[in-house]
Amino acid sequence: MTTPDPAAGDRARELDELVLHSWSKHGQVNPFTIARAEGVRMWDYEGREYLDFSSQLVNTNIGHSHPKVVAAIQQQAAELATVAPPTTNLARGEAAERILSKIDDMAAVFFTNGGADAVENAIRMARIHTGRAKVLSHYRSYHGNTGSAINATGDQRRVGNEYATGHVHCFGPFLYRSEFWAETEEQEGERALQHARRVLEAEGPSTFAAIIVEAVPGTAGILLPPPGYLQGLRDLADEHGIVLIFDEVMAGFGRTGYWFAHQHDGVKPDLVTFAKGVNSGYVPVGGVVISEKILATFRERAIPGGLTYSGNPLAAASIVASIDAMTEEGIVEHAKHLGEDVFGPALREMAERHPIIGEVRGRGVFWALDLVQDRESRKPVDASVIASIKAALLERGYVPFGADNRIHVVPPLVISDEDARAGLAILDEVLAAHA
Amino acid sequence: MTTPDPAAGDRARELDELVLHSWSKHGQVNPFTIARAEGVRMWDYEGREYLDFSSQLVNTNIGHSHPKVVAAIQQQAAELATVAPPTTNLARGEAAERILSKIDDMAAVFFTNGGADAVENAIRMARIHTGRAKVLSHYRSYHGNTGSAINATGDQRRVGNEYATGHVHCFGPFLYRSEFWAETEEQEGERALQHARRVLEAEGPSTFAAIIVEAVPGTAGILLPPPGYLQGLRDLADEHGIVLIFDEVMAGFGRTGYWFAHQHDGVKPDLVTFAKGVNSGYVPVGGVVISEKILATFRERAIPGGLTYSGNPLAAASIVASIDAMTEEGIVEHAKHLGEDVFGPALREMAERHPIIGEVRGRGVFWALDLVQDRESRKPVDASVIASIKAALLERGYVPFGADNRIHVVPPLVISDEDARAGLAILDEVLAAHA
Ligand SMILES: Cc1ncc(COP(=O)(O)O)c(C=O)c1O
Ligand SMILES: Cc1ncc(COP(=O)(O)O)c(C=O)c1O
Repeated sequence: MTTPDPAAGDRARELDELVLHSWSKHGQVNPFTIARAEGVRMWDYEGREYLDFSSQLVNTNIGHSHPKVVAAIQQQAAELATVAPPTTNLARGEAAERILSKIDDMAAVFFTNGGADAVENAIRMARIHTGRAKVLSHYRSYHGNTGSAINATGDQRRVGNEYATGHVHCFGPFLYRSEFWAETEEQEGERALQHARRVLEAEGPSTFAAIIVEAVPGTAGILLPPPGYLQGLRDLADEHGIVLIFDEVMAGFGRTGYWFAHQHDGVKPDLVTFAKGVNSGYVPVGGVVISEKILATFRERAIPGGLTYSGNPLAAASIVASIDAMTEEGIVEHAKHLGEDVFGPALREMAERHPIIGEVRGRGVFWALDLVQDRESRKPVDASVIASIKAALLERGYVPFGADNRIHVVPPLVISDEDARAGLAILDEVLAAHA
Repeated sequence: MTTPDPAAGDRARELDELVLHSWSKHGQVNPFTIARAEGVRMWDYEGREYLDFSSQLVNTNIGHSHPKVVAAIQQQAAELATVAPPTTNLARGEAAERILSKIDDMAAVFFTNGGADAVENAIRMARIHTGRAKVLSHYRSYHGNTGSAINATGDQRRVGNEYATGHVHCFGPFLYRSEFWAETEEQEGERALQHARRVLEAEGPSTFAAIIVEAVPGTAGILLPPPGYLQGLRDLADEHGIVLIFDEVMAGFGRTGYWFAHQHDGVKPDLVTFAKGVNSGYVPVGGVVISEKILATFRERAIPGGLTYSGNPLAAASIVASIDAMTEEGIVEHAKHLGEDVFGPALREMAERHPIIGEVRGRGVFWALDLVQDRESRKPVDASVIASIKAALLERGYVPFGADNRIHVVPPLVISDEDARAGLAILDEVLAAHA
């Protein structure tokens, strides 16, 4: 708990006029101002308590202010917060070691500052490894805001940002809103693969450096790949000598009940991008996990990419503490349990009662409610409905995550069954009021 | 001082096999492993002490482990390390306020994670503001490793990374190695402007969104712009409705003895990119300072750019503490004094004695020694000479910064006159041995 200090809240709102926010028009101050947070709870300056059902931007997997991660940051800050990337650093080496311990058959890590530059560097590695330029990705995807990352992105955030070359998009599988006239998951997966193959063929498969897909597309609606789809991409990539990149920035580090989302499908990528859950975003960091196949290229020639804060020790120490705590406390197993025993059953049961819920999708602590005007047409609800639901949830002390016509149910993985049920009860009540 | 712990050093070197380093071939472990650092001093695990004359990648302007910045990080980590960008946050607002207090006539700040994505977002803003695509920058420049940033970069790191569109380069002023057959600074400045104007005209000036230049090109060799050059770019930009961006990632926050390097020239840009010195890189952060002229565009429409860690509170708190400490302790004034009374005179005097020094350039705590085979031809020394000088400096407990045929003298701005002279004495000795 935090002692209320409304003056600090007012000052925050006043100073906010000096900050241009991501993806926003300037000048629309968001009155929601958080003073402190712990676990799944946040407190504003007025002393109100909230349950975080957003994990902010789906990044605080370990919850807020985890004591072991906070302590590691405090200690590393006092010893050595920053050091040049060419030097050898113990915290950085340990961070790489911890990450590699959670994924089979990978050889090294390249550290960046976030998800977008992880994607940039993965694409760069693929281009250099193959000597080719083109990149295939899904329309329903988000990969970050910089040059290649925003062009690999399929969603509308790409539009108006298209200054990179060599990007080609195709539709990924999504049965509920199929682009392939499919009627079963199996059909959807097969047809999506057929579509990806046809796009590659029409573009010239030997011109492709990389296929990059989110292992589970997140912001696009938590679209679990049909069984066999990721393996099909693996086969396509192998057939044409293309590098397969799984973007695990949002789905990775326990969100789906697996350390990496693609482990559910048992498919091995060549490169994996990560950020967010790796240290819950306490210190900005991201990176690329690299297989020996790709690393071999960079044993022969220098990687033409780098950044001042690559492997920043403060970020590295927070990764080590976060992965250790997640392991010791069984947080990934808990996420699996929550998905199977709490969120899955409760959300499906809710869907039976609320016709506004067109579909429930998810795994672990990664769930989407696809809200519709009616179940027959599956027409998405208007933006105003989502805005009203979000406002009602916040009003009741539930911090929501909304995207397009959906509410994503994505609290920190450390949420107790009890708090999970408390949040779900609020959601239930608000959906009932929006019938 | 740190208690020696050679086992930890060995462990760091062993784990380094798991880290792919920036701009490097994999597998060449750098034996230099730092355990702890304070002010201008660093200690390795073997207990050896070093003077940091590199500021790592010219980022630790305030020195290592500054107690006020460390304390701010420790406190913010315990309260709220991360929060979603759309919310209002006090630390973030205060960080924007502190930055804006050091530069006239700017209206807001957009926060990123480092220098490259600051450049990406500045270019994005310029493109949206103008509705145009092209960007003019200098060949002798570095702007970061992501899509547009690496393409705006002029130096060799661009090559092999050219997947962005609309980038045009021209030569900037550099009298010692003039591209314009100039014989005086004044002539060099005038001819460089004429060259920039001709390139714009040949490309079509109305197709340009931005001119982006380092206020003082850093990695390229600390190339002080001739009097009038930056104003000339300002006039060119105004004449053609082009946005003028000064990249102050390396030169900003006191490095030149001014809060921003361009303040020496009294010229007002439309956008300024920053990172490094803003918080000395303790927590990865960067951003764009925005004039009202450009901000007005984003009062009308949302900026199509964003990132998960934009305005991360931990980074923001470190900015506030760092700028406050730099102000209270007169660190920028001290940097000016060091340039005028210590580094400038001492390096020029050294050049009189060592013919290997072709030219001494710099301001504040931002100096380059341009090393030559002979003064007549001005032919750069070979890479092996720089490698040998760097090794000899490190051997003597001086952490060097080398680039091409140059040694840059760029310690933290907090260095005492005495330590500065001690470092310079080592440099003198090593240069004498490389006569
Ligand atoms: C799958 C995916 N990739 C990349 C990114 C970009 O990460 P960042 O915002 O840290 O640049 C995101 C962010 O939401 C993401 O969800
Ligand atoms: C002038 C300039 N701009 C941009 C950058 C890129 O910054 P970062 O390495 O944080 O991406 C640098 C880094 O050296 C720089 O010197």
